[in-house]
Amino acid sequence: MKTYSKHIALNTEKKEIINITSRVQMILHDSGIKEGMCLVNSMHTTSALFINEDEQGLKQDLLKTIEELIPQENDYKHFGDDNAHAHIKSMILGRGVTIAVSENKLELGQWEQIMFLELDGPRTRKIAVKIIGE
Amino acid sequence: MKTYSKHIALNTEKKEIINITSRVQMILHDSGIKEGMCLVNSMHTTSALFINEDEQGLKQDLLKTIEELIPQENDYKHFGDDNAHAHIKSMILGRGVTIAVSENKLELGQWEQIMFLELDGPRTRKIAVKIIGE
Amino acid sequence: MKTYSKHIALNTEKKEIINITSRVQMILHDSGIKEGMCLVNSMHTTSALFINEDEQGLKQDLLKTIEELIPQENDYKHFGDDNAHAHIKSMILGRGVTIAVSENKLELGQWEQIMFLELDGPRTRKIAVKIIGE
Repeated sequence: MKTYSKHIALNTEKKEIINITSRVQMILHDSGIKEGMCLVNSMHTTSALFINEDEQGLKQDLLKTIEELIPQENDYKHFGDDNAHAHIKSMILGRGVTIAVSENKLELGQWEQIMFLELDGPRTRKIAVKIIGE
Repeated sequence: MKTYSKHIALNTEKKEIINITSRVQMILHDSGIKEGMCLVNSMHTTSALFINEDEQGLKQDLLKTIEELIPQENDYKHFGDDNAHAHIKSMILGRGVTIAVSENKLELGQWEQIMFLELDGPRTRKIAVKIIGE
Repeated sequence: MKTYSKHIALNTEKKEIINITSRVQMILHDSGIKEGMCLVNSMHTTSALFINEDEQGLKQDLLKTIEELIPQENDYKHFGDDNAHAHIKSMILGRGVTIAVSENKLELGQWEQIMFLELDGPRTRKIAVKIIGE
């Protein structure tokens, strides 16, 4: 059994969706692991990480829809910061995905891309990639 | 260490929730893996995969509630298709689950079932099942 | 390759968010596994499990926001129980997380804590922790 770990660093804008698929694929390639699982986790509480299509209009639709559901201004009680909305969006969208690895490739469907969503930038963000298998 | 992979194929209706638990259990049985993890991933951007109870009324409640939160018609910008709502529902519900495997069984609670949700059918869908362990 | 399993038992209030990070860290420590993955799954259909900050005001904000999005009373069809809202909140927030394990430590960011959310208590709840690696 082998394990392999790397971190991806991102410098983000205020709000931004960043496609990190090719970076994860490069890490998987370097790992040499052929069969197993690849975990990709954002290590932050005001960002999200999910898999879906990378299309400009759709990214606007996502940002607008979650802003309507969980507005930035809403009489929140969260201490010290004005970013409660970003925390709650993060909880709902999730902070990580696990992807099957077969023949040293990520098992992603035709339109599936790994997307990082900054909800409270600009910041320096760190994403943990961990691959286990053989 | 062992790994084992299979795909489940589904032919879906326009909107539909399909219980795939017994199919995943059969794959786990065939794998012979006793202790480890089982990953179940929908490979599509307009479907979802989650774990919850399989009850007719509850399935209607879920479809109605997510339609109220993310309506099918809403001035979306997504290019080419009219299914932005399905993408956003998919992002929020998620496209995969990871389940503990103990004594060659899925560690699911009494009411927990693995449910596939078609949001933009009818289509042929593919679900990746990957088990690693020993 | 090693695997290690434990269950965490919780006695919950009606609605409650419980930080279980230190209990998961203790299980990881006992496992002796240095590199791998740690799966934490709530085994119930009316609770949720996610990673975010443990701050009193933010916990109130989360409970209030999800109650506004998915109200307890809403003409649900779910048979027998009046807890459809709890099921749907569970589907949206998710019932599990997978965390990278490096040097026998959970790879969590500075503010990240593992949080269990009771949506339909009081109950006795069981959380499966499974670690695989070496």
